[in-house]
Amino acid sequence: MPEFMDVHRGMHGITPDGLKEAHQADLDIQDQEGVVFKHAWADPDSGLVWCISEAPSAEAVRKVHEASGHPADEVYPVPVQA
Amino acid sequence: MPEFMDVHRGMHGITPDGLKEAHQADLDIQDQEGVVFKHAWADPDSGLVWCISEAPSAEAVRKVHEASGHPADEVYPVPVQA
Repeated sequence: MPEFMDVHRGMHGITPDGLKEAHQADLDIQDQEGVVFKHAWADPDSGLVWCISEAPSAEAVRKVHEASGHPADEVYPVPVQA
Repeated sequence: MPEFMDVHRGMHGITPDGLKEAHQADLDIQDQEGVVFKHAWADPDSGLVWCISEAPSAEAVRKVHEASGHPADEVYPVPVQA
């Protein structure tokens, strides 16, 4: 299944518990769109959060993030990896 | 050791071999700065590349990427993960 990197902006001050809670909200509903979120990284200072997922499409990733209450600002396919 | 997400822009059309070669160039010299590059993801269409690493500092990540010939446009600490 294709993999995607998505980016959230404006998450300044995000805490470990806050990220865990947001990530769990995605996991709880990801089956609806056939998405598998694998990991999330956050920088509380810049307010940036990145999530890597396997998904049928970028739109599926967007739908899960929107439904769980934290829409992604950008979603990119990452077909090339090393 | 702290982890960092770095971003490269303008890598349009990057191929699997191109990313593998660039990543290997980092791996070959990363010990000089005590950096451990773990994974890289690329989107040839947007030209964006992300690398995750363990490093003593963002400056150490920058130094390795510069010395291997592909400076990072942005380097962020990612102390919060899920």
